[in-house]
Amino acid sequence: MTDQAMDSVRTEIAQIIEALETGKYKRVRKRLRHMHPAKIASLIETLDDEQRLAVWQQVDAANEGRILAHLSPALARRLPRESGEPLLEDEAGGVAASEAQRASTQMREVREALAQGKLKRVGKILNGMHPAKVAGLLEALPPEERSDAWSMVETERAGKVLSYLHDESCASLAQEMDPEDLVVAARRLDLDDLVDLIQTLPEDSGRQLLQATDARHREKLESMLSYPEDSAGGLMNTDHIAVRPDVKVQTVLGYLRLLKTLPVQTDKLMVVDRKGIYQGVLLLSTLVTVQPERRVADIMDTETPAIPVDMPDDEVAHLFQDLDLLSAPVVDAQRMLLGRITVDDVVDQIRESSERAMMHMAGLDQEADIFAPVLTSSRRRAVWLGINLLTAFLAAWVIGLFQTTLERVVALAVLMPIVASMGGIAGSQTLTLVIRGMALGQVAGGNARALLSKEMGIAALNGVAWALVVAALAVVWFGDWQIGGVIGAAILINLLFAALAGLAVPLVLDRLGIDPALAGGVILTTVTDVIGFFAFLGLATVVL
Amino acid sequence: MTDQAMDSVRTEIAQIIEALETGKYKRVRKRLRHMHPAKIASLIETLDDEQRLAVWQQVDAANEGRILAHLSPALARRLPRESGEPLLEDEAGGVAASEAQRASTQMREVREALAQGKLKRVGKILNGMHPAKVAGLLEALPPEERSDAWSMVETERAGKVLSYLHDESCASLAQEMDPEDLVVAARRLDLDDLVDLIQTLPEDSGRQLLQATDARHREKLESMLSYPEDSAGGLMNTDHIAVRPDVKVQTVLGYLRLLKTLPVQTDKLMVVDRKGIYQGVLLLSTLVTVQPERRVADIMDTETPAIPVDMPDDEVAHLFQDLDLLSAPVVDAQRMLLGRITVDDVVDQIRESSERAMMHMAGLDQEADIFAPVLTSSRRRAVWLGINLLTAFLAAWVIGLFQTTLERVVALAVLMPIVASMGGIAGSQTLTLVIRGMALGQVAGGNARALLSKEMGIAALNGVAWALVVAALAVVWFGDWQIGGVIGAAILINLLFAALAGLAVPLVLDRLGIDPALAGGVILTTVTDVIGFFAFLGLATVVL
Repeated sequence: MTDQAMDSVRTEIAQIIEALETGKYKRVRKRLRHMHPAKIASLIETLDDEQRLAVWQQVDAANEGRILAHLSPALARRLPRESGEPLLEDEAGGVAASEAQRASTQMREVREALAQGKLKRVGKILNGMHPAKVAGLLEALPPEERSDAWSMVETERAGKVLSYLHDESCASLAQEMDPEDLVVAARRLDLDDLVDLIQTLPEDSGRQLLQATDARHREKLESMLSYPEDSAGGLMNTDHIAVRPDVKVQTVLGYLRLLKTLPVQTDKLMVVDRKGIYQGVLLLSTLVTVQPERRVADIMDTETPAIPVDMPDDEVAHLFQDLDLLSAPVVDAQRMLLGRITVDDVVDQIRESSERAMMHMAGLDQEADIFAPVLTSSRRRAVWLGINLLTAFLAAWVIGLFQTTLERVVALAVLMPIVASMGGIAGSQTLTLVIRGMALGQVAGGNARALLSKEMGIAALNGVAWALVVAALAVVWFGDWQIGGVIGAAILINLLFAALAGLAVPLVLDRLGIDPALAGGVILTTVTDVIGFFAFLGLATVVL
Repeated sequence: MTDQAMDSVRTEIAQIIEALETGKYKRVRKRLRHMHPAKIASLIETLDDEQRLAVWQQVDAANEGRILAHLSPALARRLPRESGEPLLEDEAGGVAASEAQRASTQMREVREALAQGKLKRVGKILNGMHPAKVAGLLEALPPEERSDAWSMVETERAGKVLSYLHDESCASLAQEMDPEDLVVAARRLDLDDLVDLIQTLPEDSGRQLLQATDARHREKLESMLSYPEDSAGGLMNTDHIAVRPDVKVQTVLGYLRLLKTLPVQTDKLMVVDRKGIYQGVLLLSTLVTVQPERRVADIMDTETPAIPVDMPDDEVAHLFQDLDLLSAPVVDAQRMLLGRITVDDVVDQIRESSERAMMHMAGLDQEADIFAPVLTSSRRRAVWLGINLLTAFLAAWVIGLFQTTLERVVALAVLMPIVASMGGIAGSQTLTLVIRGMALGQVAGGNARALLSKEMGIAALNGVAWALVVAALAVVWFGDWQIGGVIGAAILINLLFAALAGLAVPLVLDRLGIDPALAGGVILTTVTDVIGFFAFLGLATVVL
């Protein structure tokens, strides 16, 4: 080797070692891919044991043999053994084993391999899994392990994996990719998934992706991007197959055979006239059962509702659920066919909206990454704690009004959390019931009064029952009949107000356009704390 | 008329009036259906205005004209006008209007009509709606209105409506029906819906339904009933179409044309061998794109996983979501094809399981009727309040330990709820995140430690920040530096323990096989209350 060549090798080695040390495995792999096997072999020989194994993990499986041929025989024997592992069991097809079990096994294997730096093995496991599972697994990994694992996902599959991630983890992993790789990954996506991805990414990355799309798709993409994410337009895809109403079934069959394959999740064709106006749908199950000489117009289904492109996504979800749809046409105001919505996107929407309520009740964002950086998470949760602190101080202020009473009878201080807590629990039951009922449409059309009288009835019954129990316990504990009476009365009062607030708060918030799940709990607790303390300590001041 | 005939008419009138007064409209309608129009006319003429209108509401629309012909001209003019209403707008097909708007309008119309006793109009509205919408509307009605409206649902449609109701309201409405009507209603149901219905009904009604099924279906039904409700077997239907692998596409098409229609939601055929062993699936979209002379075995898809009949329903849901399936075959341990699961049932399962977590967090049952009788609801919720009372008394007991300190410094009593409340909020955030993460598979495979360190980091940051804020506020309020220091330290301690408990409680509960959503909140609050009070009052006892 000439000195110059030696220098160049040294620079390369230095660069690769640097990339290794900073964990930039993707860069290592890229460099290795452009190096001659002999060069890689000489690189490997100059490294210490640990670095050597790390580099070996980045070598393309297809190249391994050629590199081994250039290594010293001892090393050539040792290297594959040290990094080698038994092959994974066959995953494809067959009876699905216990999914949960398999997922947990895969997770353990991936984490073990990551801990040992066996990235190649990680890649083998990940690239044998379904993209949805890969997404789930990535989200379960702490940030650093996640980056390492992510770097091992084949670029061609990365797009599909991104489409299964929650918004926050999706954005952060997409930004870890080289922009060119991201473009390659995105190229494999369906248009609707691509639209989602662009909307999830920071603006400039999104624009970059959009510009990298070929002209034919870009126009479609831009029009799809113009619809709000939470509307039918945001759920829509444009991969439908359209036929004319005046042709015969055999013509349609001939056309489909020319196409060779249909888009996934095609259960029906769309029927449009010459101008693209929606006429009806032709179910594949009709197509295969009717005589070939029938005309499309005679056998098409005109009952399937065409979804206006601006319909909110939760209404779309209700429609799919109610009518058990697999897919449905989307039209504009002129009934021009724009695309179709498939049930898989609706399923995601349904799951997300149910989760949203639960997460919002704890002041969390459902798209948030469970392993978001500590600082980010802290800042987000601090807001919620701050709001709650205000309400806690309000409750404290109420207690402060009765300091002299508390000084006289310290037993009150001992018992007062019981009053507040019972009210909070009872109120949150009503609140949850109402929030769920609102989502299901069970609380609507002026039945609030009927619901109120029912909830007040429950509060009265439970109020009296538990008032007696708590009063009795208080009497036994403090040997004072009056304290028993006061706490009993306070509990009854608080449960009644809790029921009232549990119903009124979400209804009022909803009317104000605020998500009841988000703010409802805080306001409710404020009410039950304030009323509870006020009733208990106020009554005590009068009576004791 | 003879005296005897007059007597018989009188008895009939008396019975009808009695049925009217007790609100048994269905019985009234049945009787009227068997009476001659002239007889009904004479009945109507003997009634007072209110009863007359009520009876008119029960008359079959088809019969109205013939009855009017027998009435006095004045009454014949008045009756339809008094009960008449403009016809409903056309509902069928077309662009779906704003669903939410329409639902709320329908609800208002139904309640108005119910309030005015215009049951016939209620029937008209309900029978023009999709069964799913009818179910939603019924659940939004208070018990009495619900019964009235239910009595107006056509028996033929009642089965489908029942299948869309939540368990509790389904059981109670089914029991309001005559057993024979219930049998008629059930006859229209798909087998899987029928299985659900039988499982929802009290045992003897369920058995009655089962016995009324014809022998051919009963065997299938009994085998489906033998699978647990929450397994693949419980979601399965047996309406799949099976073909042999060795036949040609044109033979399959010929067979399908003989069948004339396919079961709803058929997107694929099942391929089985002579013994019924599952071989693969044949997508309809493949069937219509391949050449007719191809053999099924060459074009069938063997990648679609066959679901074991005992797979838990939430795993089935994950599988459908991950693989975007529309339907999937169900097999037994010997890979014998038993049936298929369709995505509509999975959608219900997904929605229910997300709702379940939210409802369980408030100690509610997600199948519970929002308008269940007050006594039933009270009893159910009392259990939850009782459990919470135990934890509240535990907290009170902790406070009781520090009575002497509280007597000395009453400011502590004022501030102590703040400590407990901040801990409760912070803990519930971690808890919710972990419960959701467990459902999504994000908390698995030993990443609990990574999650713990992240949550502890957040707790430390937020703990310090809010400790400073609260301490400052306490100092300003009570002018005492020591109280500030004590509450600050207590808040930091409580937030750290809250994070620990928020993570540990659901993990331990899950390992014990207890639903973390159900018991997690109570245990967490107990921890944060006890630690909060103990830290705050304990530190105060030492310092002050």
